[in-house]
Amino acid sequence: MARPSLREKLASSAVDTLHAFGFKGCSIQDITEAAGVPKGSFFNHFENKEDLAIDALRRYIEGTRPDLLFEEGVPPLQRLKNHFTFLTDRLAESGFERGCMLGIFATEMAQDYPKMREELRLVFETWCSAVESVLRDAQAAGDIDPRHDPGLLARYVVNAWEGAVVRLKLTRDRSPLDDFFHVCFKLLLK
Amino acid sequence: MARPSLREKLASSAVDTLHAFGFKGCSIQDITEAAGVPKGSFFNHFENKEDLAIDALRRYIEGTRPDLLFEEGVPPLQRLKNHFTFLTDRLAESGFERGCMLGIFATEMAQDYPKMREELRLVFETWCSAVESVLRDAQAAGDIDPRHDPGLLARYVVNAWEGAVVRLKLTRDRSPLDDFFHVCFKLLLK
Repeated sequence: MARPSLREKLASSAVDTLHAFGFKGCSIQDITEAAGVPKGSFFNHFENKEDLAIDALRRYIEGTRPDLLFEEGVPPLQRLKNHFTFLTDRLAESGFERGCMLGIFATEMAQDYPKMREELRLVFETWCSAVESVLRDAQAAGDIDPRHDPGLLARYVVNAWEGAVVRLKLTRDRSPLDDFFHVCFKLLLK
Repeated sequence: MARPSLREKLASSAVDTLHAFGFKGCSIQDITEAAGVPKGSFFNHFENKEDLAIDALRRYIEGTRPDLLFEEGVPPLQRLKNHFTFLTDRLAESGFERGCMLGIFATEMAQDYPKMREELRLVFETWCSAVESVLRDAQAAGDIDPRHDPGLLARYVVNAWEGAVVRLKLTRDRSPLDDFFHVCFKLLLK
């Protein structure tokens, strides 16, 4: 296998550093040091730290298995449950110490970084559209009330998930996610 | 009226600076400059920046009118709605550009600042207990299903609120809060 390029080394390591410390919690030097690349090489590959963070966000999302929402042969609400279960397992890997990169960047960067804000806006819209289409399938299958607005429900569920993930930074256990699963799948989506 | 002490001037101004820029987004110098006090005076009044942030958090919460949840003569679900309406109005004051200080500090500080993490854990517990007691009243009044676990529902509703507030940093309008109100008060709490 070919050695990864310096850019690839920097970018793939940055996902982890930015996720662990947040955008404002680490410097370009922290990021290049963690990647084991010379600090001076940074600006050969990225215009600025925001650009690197956008690249990291895209890589982070690639790792969230969005395909689980569309898996053939799986009933719609089960697909939704599998999706959030996968995200739960990822959070468990860090001992529930890290949050969701989307929520972290939204909190830290939305105000002062318009490029990142626009990127996050689109990421959330894409995510909500995918969840909405699953909820439409669930309505067509008669699994949830057909009178509900699936777009509104999808946005709500995604935001409620993000809130549960903020809370687990304090509980450091899966209890906020368990609450989310219980209310979403036993009370709300029916 | 007596002139506010230097400590009071620093502490009350810090609520605004920390809320606007986040803990990691402003330095002690930014905070003292915004307060119009000498930088050197900081450590006469606070042990460190975390201590000041904890003081700011307490002041922030005092401004959230927690009494609205217990207002006599108002039906329980209306009290809950009044509570979240008050929080919505506060967010509107900043043009929906600022988030909730609780969520901001949880995201930025929970990992590295154990004192703040413990403070936030208690703040959320107190908030959830208050909401739980309103939901118990609503159950006693026959307004929501008595089979629901009011503690679990309360935690879920508070977390869903925090998630909606994260999202509005991207939408910059009240739409995530409108989704929250719709789902909570028309679909969930009944």
